[in-house]
Amino acid sequence: MIILGLDPSLSCTGWGVIRVEGSRISHIANGQIPTSPKAPMVQRLAALHSGIAEIIAAHRPDRAAAEEVFANKNAQSTIKLAQARGAVLAACGSAGLEVREHAARLVKKAVVGTGGADKAQVQAMLKVLLPGAMLAGADAADALAVAIADANLG
Amino acid sequence: MIILGLDPSLSCTGWGVIRVEGSRISHIANGQIPTSPKAPMVQRLAALHSGIAEIIAAHRPDRAAAEEVFANKNAQSTIKLAQARGAVLAACGSAGLEVREHAARLVKKAVVGTGGADKAQVQAMLKVLLPGAMLAGADAADALAVAIADANLG
Repeated sequence: MIILGLDPSLSCTGWGVIRVEGSRISHIANGQIPTSPKAPMVQRLAALHSGIAEIIAAHRPDRAAAEEVFANKNAQSTIKLAQARGAVLAACGSAGLEVREHAARLVKKAVVGTGGADKAQVQAMLKVLLPGAMLAGADAADALAVAIADANLG
Repeated sequence: MIILGLDPSLSCTGWGVIRVEGSRISHIANGQIPTSPKAPMVQRLAALHSGIAEIIAAHRPDRAAAEEVFANKNAQSTIKLAQARGAVLAACGSAGLEVREHAARLVKKAVVGTGGADKAQVQAMLKVLLPGAMLAGADAADALAVAIADANLG
């Protein structure tokens, strides 16, 4: 079973692909799709959509997972995030992928053991769980974490 | 010049295509892309993305227009709307289309002459401005209105 974890955002969408065999988890790839703040919104959304479509075509995951979206206090930030998420999820849907959503607290709990873990704890645990994996950045790390949580949540 | 007007929403995205020659505006086509509330979110987003991509391929608009997105009081409604918008705008971006955004008030003002016009007034004016056009529904009408406003706003 191959799982694609996603951390969608307009400025930089993280992704991570893992293999799950029984209780064994291994790293396949991770990366980030940055978009230029100077580019028109539709071009940025198109870049996220095509970037994720390419990753799906390259790694052929069996399913995908993302953190549940939350409403920011700033409505414009919520709209930007949700638009980016729409572009990313549409690419998953076009490839026939199911995308399971998990609460951020459950992701941290599944990876570190506590729902209140901070980013540094999550990244440290990723190095233990996925030895040898080079993290492309914080967004890619978050994407790998949600993929691992998805595997653990069955 | 061919303009594609868009009224994105998760449950039903409206679209309308008009031709603009100097000050003359004529109707080409309009329609709606409904999605099933029973389908998984990613499938609904994929249907919106592929539906708009097909309309762009069929009508080859020179540019597109949509109403500015607004934050609903209900954060979950805002997220659903913005995700749908992200899927629709990504399809425009992939086709190299510019999407101009106009405030709802300016759209009504451009079509009816007053920013406070209601839906019935907008639809009545569409029948005058686009004689013979059969409206596929309220969402298609809103999409044609934003296309006309875009033409009038130059």
